[in-house]
Formats: sequence, C-alpha cells, structure tokens
Amino acid sequence: MNKTNTHIIKGNIIDIFGRKIYPGEVKVENGIISEINPIQNSCDTYILPGLIDSHVHIESSMLIPSEFARMAVVHGTVSTVSDPHEIANVLGIEGVRYMINNGRKVPFKFYFGAPSCVPATAFETAGAELTPDDIRELFEKDGLLYLSEMMNYPGVLNGDNQVLEKIRIAREFNRPVDGHAPGLRGKEAEKYIQAGISTDHECFTLDEALDKLKLGMKILIREGSAAKNFEALHKLIKDFPEMVMFCSDDKHPNDLASGHINGIVKRALNYGYDLFDILRCASLNPVMHYGLNTGLLRIGDPADFIVIDNPDSFNVHQTYIHGILTALNGKTLIESENENIINNFGTSFKTETDFALLTDNQSNNRICKVRVIEALDGQLITREQHENLKCENGILLPDIKKDILKLTVVERYKNGTPSVGFIKNFGLKKGAIASCVAHDSHNIIAVGTNDKDICSAVNALIKHKGGISAACEDVTEVLPLPVAGIMTNNDGYKTAEQYTDIDKLAKDFGSELNAPFMTLSFMALLVIPQLKLSDKGLFDGEKFEFVNLNI
Amino acid sequence: MNKTNTHIIKGNIIDIFGRKIYPGEVKVENGIISEINPIQNSCDTYILPGLIDSHVHIESSMLIPSEFARMAVVHGTVSTVSDPHEIANVLGIEGVRYMINNGRKVPFKFYFGAPSCVPATAFETAGAELTPDDIRELFEKDGLLYLSEMMNYPGVLNGDNQVLEKIRIAREFNRPVDGHAPGLRGKEAEKYIQAGISTDHECFTLDEALDKLKLGMKILIREGSAAKNFEALHKLIKDFPEMVMFCSDDKHPNDLASGHINGIVKRALNYGYDLFDILRCASLNPVMHYGLNTGLLRIGDPADFIVIDNPDSFNVHQTYIHGILTALNGKTLIESENENIINNFGTSFKTETDFALLTDNQSNNRICKVRVIEALDGQLITREQHENLKCENGILLPDIKKDILKLTVVERYKNGTPSVGFIKNFGLKKGAIASCVAHDSHNIIAVGTNDKDICSAVNALIKHKGGISAACEDVTEVLPLPVAGIMTNNDGYKTAEQYTDIDKLAKDFGSELNAPFMTLSFMALLVIPQLKLSDKGLFDGEKFEFVNLNI
Repeated sequence: MNKTNTHIIKGNIIDIFGRKIYPGEVKVENGIISEINPIQNSCDTYILPGLIDSHVHIESSMLIPSEFARMAVVHGTVSTVSDPHEIANVLGIEGVRYMINNGRKVPFKFYFGAPSCVPATAFETAGAELTPDDIRELFEKDGLLYLSEMMNYPGVLNGDNQVLEKIRIAREFNRPVDGHAPGLRGKEAEKYIQAGISTDHECFTLDEALDKLKLGMKILIREGSAAKNFEALHKLIKDFPEMVMFCSDDKHPNDLASGHINGIVKRALNYGYDLFDILRCASLNPVMHYGLNTGLLRIGDPADFIVIDNPDSFNVHQTYIHGILTALNGKTLIESENENIINNFGTSFKTETDFALLTDNQSNNRICKVRVIEALDGQLITREQHENLKCENGILLPDIKKDILKLTVVERYKNGTPSVGFIKNFGLKKGAIASCVAHDSHNIIAVGTNDKDICSAVNALIKHKGGISAACEDVTEVLPLPVAGIMTNNDGYKTAEQYTDIDKLAKDFGSELNAPFMTLSFMALLVIPQLKLSDKGLFDGEKFEFVNLNI
Repeated sequence: MNKTNTHIIKGNIIDIFGRKIYPGEVKVENGIISEINPIQNSCDTYILPGLIDSHVHIESSMLIPSEFARMAVVHGTVSTVSDPHEIANVLGIEGVRYMINNGRKVPFKFYFGAPSCVPATAFETAGAELTPDDIRELFEKDGLLYLSEMMNYPGVLNGDNQVLEKIRIAREFNRPVDGHAPGLRGKEAEKYIQAGISTDHECFTLDEALDKLKLGMKILIREGSAAKNFEALHKLIKDFPEMVMFCSDDKHPNDLASGHINGIVKRALNYGYDLFDILRCASLNPVMHYGLNTGLLRIGDPADFIVIDNPDSFNVHQTYIHGILTALNGKTLIESENENIINNFGTSFKTETDFALLTDNQSNNRICKVRVIEALDGQLITREQHENLKCENGILLPDIKKDILKLTVVERYKNGTPSVGFIKNFGLKKGAIASCVAHDSHNIIAVGTNDKDICSAVNALIKHKGGISAACEDVTEVLPLPVAGIMTNNDGYKTAEQYTDIDKLAKDFGSELNAPFMTLSFMALLVIPQLKLSDKGLFDGEKFEFVNLNI
C-alpha cells in the first residue's frame, strides 16, 4: 500500500446534501476525503464544494487549458465541462487530444466532450471534420463523458443520418448529449429533445427556458463575455433548483481574470436565493448530470472543495483540487506549463482590392438596397436589416455615419476569395479590427470603416498565423494566438493585459460594444440566426441557406 | 503539491484500444498511469486492464464487501457493478450504506447501484421499502451510478406509477437502468426496453438474447453459482463484442475461492474467440456503459490493471488497483476488516406442527392433486407440475420416492404462519436444509423430507438470526450469517470451507443438485417464473398472482 499524504482543514462545513452548516474539520488522505467531523470551537471561514462551469469553450479564453486553470482556481472553480469544439474545427481529433493532454498537466478537473458538429455546417470552410467513427473513438479510447453541443438542430429535426448516428453512438455509450437550440419552441423543441438531447445553454427568455424545462430539458444559466442570460433566467434557481446549472460558454482572458462562476453565485446570493439551491446549480447538478469525478464534500469523495470568508460576501480564500491547494487568497499556486504549439493555417497575404464590393452597375451615385447584419450587444443572435447604400464607380460603399461598416470573412486554411458584407452596431468611426477567433470554423473575420485598414488587420493575423488585431492607418496592434490560431501558450494574466489593451484600441476607434472582438467572433456563427457571414457568403440562419447581399 | 509515489511495471502491454501487444513499461504515479512506453527487451508476462463483474450481488457470496474483495482480486477482478438489492430488502438504505462504507475500507472498486425493486413484489414480506425519494437520495447523496435491476417488468409493462417514477428519476440523473426480464420477448420486450432499460443478464437462450440485442439492449453473459448461461450465449462475444459484458450475478464463497470473471475469460479463449473482443466484454464495455472510474490501461487512467503469465493460460500473477498491489501469485494482500454487524430479525422459534399441511378432508388414504414446484439445476426459473399425493389423517404427505419434498417459507422479520408447499428435484432422501438467503425478501426457506428436521433446520437459523443450516435427526449443522441474516463478517476463505462442509452434508442427504442451497435460495424468488413459494403462499410468476396448492 502506498504512502499516505494526510492533512486536515477546519471551517464551517456547508453540507449541500444535508442542507446544513456546522463547524467541522475535513480530513484528506491521498487526495480523498477520509473523514468529516464536527468540532466544538467556532470557525471564521466556510468550506464548501468547488464551483463548476457546466459549459465553456476553453479556447474562447485565448488560453490553453493549463493557463485557463491557473486563473479559474483563484475564483473557486475546480472543474469545467468543456467542449473543445473550436480547436476541433481547426485540427480535429489531434486538437481535442492537445486540450486533454495539456489539461492533464495541472491539478484541475477538465471534462472535455466529443464535439458533435465539426464542421458546424456545410456552408463554411473548416479545418477538419469529426465523423461518427471519430466520436466513437473519443468515447472509447479517450473516455470522453458526453457528446457536446448539438448545434445542428436542423440536422436533428430533418433526421440527418450523420447527426442521428452520432446521437445513437452517444446512447450506446450511455453518454448525455448537450443541446444548443436558441429560440427553438413548440413541436420542434419537442422533437429535438425527444432525439435524446438533455441540456440547453442558449435560452435568452424565461418563456423559452420554461418550455424546454417542461419537456424535461436541463437549463444552463449562462454569463459569458458575449452572451449574458442571468437577468432573464435567474428565477429558475428558485423554481427549478434540480434542473439548473451555471456556465460561461465563452470567457475572454480579461473577464476570466476578474471572475468566473463565483460571479453568478454572488449575484444569485444578492437576489436572495437560497444558498443551498445556488450551490446545487453550481456544483451538485453538473456532477450528477455528467457523472463527473469531482468531489462534493462527502466522505469518500475526491478532495475538491473551496474555503470562503462567508456565504454573504463569498470571497474565495483557498481552492483544493484532489487535495492539492491550487489557489490561496487570490493568487494561483499552479505553475505555467511550457507547452508546444500546433496549428493549421495556410492562406497568404491579401491586398486591399480583395475587399472591394463590385456591382455590375457602373453608374455613379446609384443607390443599392442591401441586406445588413445587425449585431446585438451581448447576444449571439443577429437581426437582418435592409439598408440603402451608395454605389460609386461600381463599388458599394459603407456608411460610417449610419454605422453601416464592412464585414469580411477570409478563409485561413488555404487561399480563397474573401466574402464581404455589411454590418451595423460596431460603431467604429475609423480603422478596422480583425480576429482569427471566428466561430465555428475560425477563419479570419474583420470589420472596418475602409478596405485599407481591413486589409492591414487581416494581414497582421496571416503574418502571425492567428490572433486578434486592430489597424488604423499606420498603426497595427496584434495579440498573436499561435495555438490553432485561436490560443496562446503564454501566461494568462499577461494575455489578459494584452487583450485589454487591444480591446481599448477597438473602443478608441469608436466601438461602443461591451466586447467588440467577442461580438465580432460570432458574426460568422451560422448556426445562430438570423443573418451571418461565412467565408462562402451571406447566410440566413433561419432558412439555413445562402442569401444575396443585394435585394 | 503532495508527495509522489511512483513505481514502474514492465511486461507485454495488451492495448485493448489499439488491439495490439508490445513489450513496454507502465509508470504509475499516485495511483494514476502517468506514462506507458515501449521497451526493447522482451518480457515474459502480460499487462492488461483488470476484469470487471458487470452484475453481482455481493451478498450472495455470504461475505461483506471487504471480504469479497480479498478473494476477488486473486482472480484479477478490480471492480464490480454490484446491486445491494439483498441487504436493501432486509435493511433499506441503512443496508445499502453499510455495503458502501465497508467496501470503501479496501483497495477495490465497488460500484453499487440503487436497488429498483425493494420490496421485489407486494406478494411477500420484506424488511424494508425503497421509495422513489429514497432512489433520488441514493443518486444525490451517495452518488450511486445506476438504477439496478428492474425486476418488476409487469410493473413496467402495466405502467405502475412508482416504477415509472424511479425510471424517470434515473433519467433525470442520467443514470442507466439495468434490466431483468427472463424470457420476455416481442412487443413486451420492446415496451420494456423503450421504458429506458438498457441491459439484461437473464437471457437463457440465444434467440432471446438476439431479440433483445436487436432492440438495442446490452446482454450480460452470466456464469454464477446458480445460473450458468455461457454455453447458450458465448457466440455473442464474436458477433456483438460491443454489446456484451460478463457477470456472475450470484457467487457462493467456495466458488469465489476457485474463480471469478477470469473463468469466463478462459472459457472464451478456449472457444477461440478474439482476445481483444473478450477483454472488451470483460473490461471496456462495463466502464463505458456505467461510466466507472476504473482504469483501462490508458495514460491518465487510474492504475487498475493485472499481470498474467500469458493470454493462453491466463493465470493472474498480480492485481493492481489504483496503483496498489492487492494480489500476488494467488495470495490476497488485502487485510480483513474488523467490521460491525447490522441485522433485522424478529421471529421466534417454531414447532414441528407449524409445518404440517392439513386438508379439510379427514378420510385416510385419500389422494390429493397438488401443484408442485419443479426446481431446475443451474436455473432460476422453475416449472409447475401437477402430482397426486397421499393424505393421511387429514395431513398431506411428501413422497420421498417420487422426490416430492416439502418446501416452507417462514417470515423472519416478525412472527407469522409458515407457508408450506411441495417441490421436486432436490433429491433429499433424509433430513432437511434451510437458508435465510431466500431471494428477494430473505425470509427463512427450507426443504425437507419430514417436518421434524425442517423445524430443527429452521430453528437453528432463528437461533443465530440468519445463516444456512442442515438437520437430520439429532445432527444440526449451521453456517451463521449474522450480517442482515445473509452475510458473515468472518474470513472469506474460512467461510468458503464451512460452506463446502454444509453443502456436502446436503448432498449426503441425497441432493444431486450442483448447489442445493443456492437453488433453494431462489425458490422464493417470485419475479422469476413459473411457480414459487412466498411466506404468504404459492405464487404463479407468469400470471403474477397467488395460486392454490390443491387443484
């Protein structure tokens, strides 16, 4: 029998099963809780299960898992249910395994899923494909615990064979299937859920959530850098504590530096919801739903728990993962890993004229009616607007006064012709911003006031084989993301600062969006309605077909 | 970070995922496999994942889990999927937790389920009941991984509310539901499986198994002390390697001393089936189906593996569980636990006349036609026979020549009137044998040639508050089972010897059954057709109703 490593932590035990709090001490042996005993003397601090992000794409933090973990533990996060969908779109199974292997190097419990929709649609150019056989291999060889977000709900509703086969394989392996069906209601929601899909994190109204709950679906309340649904859905914590989980979905590095699931917990506490209901959503429900090997402060559980000052202010003092102290008073105790880089990037530099929108009509000052994407701050959905734009010398022009800017998606895997359209609400008065984080295929997406700056921003990313950039005249700033073009293997806190700087630059250009790069990254996400742009053209996410720019 | 405990094991690695064998070394750190590397020099021994019993009632070994583990590891077993159904029928949730807590004291991976059918039927007297709320509590507080065998298939087919609610709760917690539907076919099997039940370990013909496989059910090939289905089902290993698991269901202590799942593996190898298909059934499939935290010899897995001489003779040299060497060359390295006793036993001594079968008719030498249970060696099912028996002075008599003996079930929780019937095929020429192991309610069951010996055998068990006994005239032998009346906290190997002695005594009385006490223990198992005896009377398992002894 191997040597025993024992330690004891004292505090007010928050027993989420007995729904009671009492002074006690937790005995940890070799990472497992061997005893929990009441004590007489009173305690200042509180011990409770660690917090779990029930759905997050680690890639959106622009950090590799080991760096994500370093920052998350500071906020009391011990586990994430993580869909490696982004890197899978770039690098397939090799990318998924990169995440798993890097995550194993640090004391943090990542539970990666098998991405269900790679590529997300046939209407865009992705870097890889995951077939049903690949899904089987990820369950079988890599032991992944679930089939992650089934975004192709038209495929489910129309009985697409590949989609149904992936769901069938998940059933064969007894793995839950995560949903993704924004706005889906009534009979269609019923059919989608009956296919065996058991969660949704895309609800943006309470009515929609209640519909899905009635059909037996579990609802994830999401507060991410882009989508924020807490205000709309928080009532569910009180009314359906057994059916709710918390997630961030997408978290930018600067936001991750300032908080995580603890932020949702604090807000729920401020609304006066019951502590045990809140912790049920934050810890117990995801462990039960996904069958996680994350402890819940029971004897025999892995020692995954946190120490906080008190349940009112909920300041995290210590985070233990499998008995290892990983964070202490706001400082991470996890060291950075010296991780290698993988990528899939093949396009070469563009020229300004690649972004010009020519029309057949050569007459000057002609007005063209076009479809314009209306971006909504804090939402993944967009609206379709119809606007009149000037056409000079056969070139269709943006209208900065009306905040109608140019949007382009440039294929990054090999050389292709950029697709170009128009978008509202980015608010740039000058310059352009570009990102290689462009859901779901992660081609290069850019928005700008003129073709020259758009071209500079795009070429900066081609030069670094990934990243985000901002360009205005002779100034070009870049945050390089060399891992799959969407992540860095650098220090997370440093990356957070760099991101804050370039985000500020975008706002200096005039954007009033809360997170312009994040919103930009969703403008090519075809599976979320209404109007989006792929590297192949303008796309209607409701009809699920390409549409013309001109009306 | 805590101290590292590292060791390296060399051998021919049997990679069940890559389906290849190569010389290599496994590096284990703190119970986890950190590296697996090929080596140049050839090796004598072979390293492969540990074996898993996918369905076993630990209680049937008459041993508490810690003793079961001591004996099982010698045969290369590292995990059991264990339904604590027996102790739950005696002691409810308290009994389930007794099993969990005792099992945690030894390095062995027990995965207990939430018993779905306690009591098994309303037609017998059990010691406890598990309600849907109890099932929820076992998933929630105790983290159990599945709802174990749903024996009440009439309840499923007829839409019994409590049954459906338990299945619904399992779905809410994303837990698989184990089946138990002997002989169920066609539309009924379809309805049963559609209710969400995904395994069956009761198939006794290949046709039945194929029917259930077609409907998506996984089939457990069972070789236990009583039921032996390997001969009927072994073809499935070749034809459906992804849908098959191995189990023992019930294993007497003497049988456990001589072998376990390794026995099934050896027989499958002798039949020439592919090694990787066999190991898939023995290790991989249960881990995938139930989501077990048992390793499969992958980097990052818990170090749960075995070392054997070679895949042909399959002799287990070493068994590692979470990196701990638990068995070495046929000797267990796990120490016995000094475990406490719990029980639920309330009946007082019986008299000979309690077992007399009076008829209304006082005339001598009258012939009465009665229903007789026909026991089948190695099967849980019985047949109904109709026989003529002599009635003297209003007392119905057994017919030892025709091997028609008396069978009785005596309630053990409180005082009740024994129920009495007749049974064929036990073959006793003298004396009586009795057992407090009497599925599923574990009242006292006894078979014998005369009322006096039956009464002695029964009273011996009442005196010891549980166990098995054999009595003939003035000689009475008892194996006391004080834990819930069905298990002992004594040394497993000593218990195996005691069991062998009393089993031999039963055979000396004339029984030619392979395991008379085991067969006896199923004669009160009402959920398995055709004719059984409960403490409340003779029961038709097909009509699911009581029937008269006289026809």
